[in-house]
Amino acid sequence: MDFYALPIANLIDELSKLPGIGRKTAQRLAFYILDMDKSEVEKLSASLLEAKEKIKFCSVCCNLTESDPCYICSNKARDGSIICVVENSKDIIAMERSKDFKGLYHVLNGVISPMDNIGPNDINVKELLSRLDSSVEEIIIATNPTVEGEATALYLAKLIKPLDIKVTRIAHGIPIGGDLEFFDEITLSKAMENRREI
Amino acid sequence: MDFYALPIANLIDELSKLPGIGRKTAQRLAFYILDMDKSEVEKLSASLLEAKEKIKFCSVCCNLTESDPCYICSNKARDGSIICVVENSKDIIAMERSKDFKGLYHVLNGVISPMDNIGPNDINVKELLSRLDSSVEEIIIATNPTVEGEATALYLAKLIKPLDIKVTRIAHGIPIGGDLEFFDEITLSKAMENRREI
Repeated sequence: MDFYALPIANLIDELSKLPGIGRKTAQRLAFYILDMDKSEVEKLSASLLEAKEKIKFCSVCCNLTESDPCYICSNKARDGSIICVVENSKDIIAMERSKDFKGLYHVLNGVISPMDNIGPNDINVKELLSRLDSSVEEIIIATNPTVEGEATALYLAKLIKPLDIKVTRIAHGIPIGGDLEFFDEITLSKAMENRREI
Repeated sequence: MDFYALPIANLIDELSKLPGIGRKTAQRLAFYILDMDKSEVEKLSASLLEAKEKIKFCSVCCNLTESDPCYICSNKARDGSIICVVENSKDIIAMERSKDFKGLYHVLNGVISPMDNIGPNDINVKELLSRLDSSVEEIIIATNPTVEGEATALYLAKLIKPLDIKVTRIAHGIPIGGDLEFFDEITLSKAMENRREI
């Protein structure tokens, strides 16, 4: 074992619990932090607590938010007739970057994954169904194109279609700027399958 | 710009100030932290403050420590006649791992580097000289084998030799398990130069 003073050892322990931070990186970060201005360390420490304390789930779309409903759900300029279903809050950030979509979102906070013991009741499906009144015309399912993401998409489509609401899936294919030779055969066959006339 | 709730944006900002943590990693860490138990976040936050508040420099050897003098300086079993001079506290951890050295340490907290405007007065040289009484027989200079580390070693040797104290430098060569073909010519010529009869 290494001979760190206890507060340094604790700090290294705590930092190395973060994902992608091993012992060596935690050690490097800890010594950097000891070298930082005290006010900077206080800001970092406070920002951790503040984020954890102030961030809640939006009661409408389950997005992470400070205010409830979140800034998207409470924006009257957005189109409430289209709801884009995503796996998590990070996906909303990515979608919003494109500035194309003007509808609302719904965050599942996961996908159905029997292998990990995650069923429909463990993700925000109930919350999605409770939003589906007559004003909703289309549900775009934007879960990731993984086995679990596809299974979740199919599950949701089966649930929602009987309610007479259009259910669509985002397109999968070659990303813009991508080179055919670098993509796997499933992406390519999806891209061929979803081809459009020009 | 991305549309994070303010406390999330702050947390990402603060995390991305750490070395080796870019925006993407900071974002990933922030979402992980939001998902952690509150008590875990509180422990992480407290460990930052505690390390910064409780860790001081040892008044003898300038090592980072909670108690003063540090656990090495206050250990009567260690040999006070040999002092190993290192660049920073992390080097002590590395040296202690080998369990061979039973003397004391002195942490310079840097090296002389005119390019970065760091002179002898900016590192703990004065503190080292004040420790050199008649009980000290040998100073081992274990600064890194960089240009600055070598220059600092020479500078210290010049200062200390007139005091009739033996000054030595740790050996440089091929590390154990290393393969000759992967080392640079300076390491190889040092290894040749420092060869020993067997």
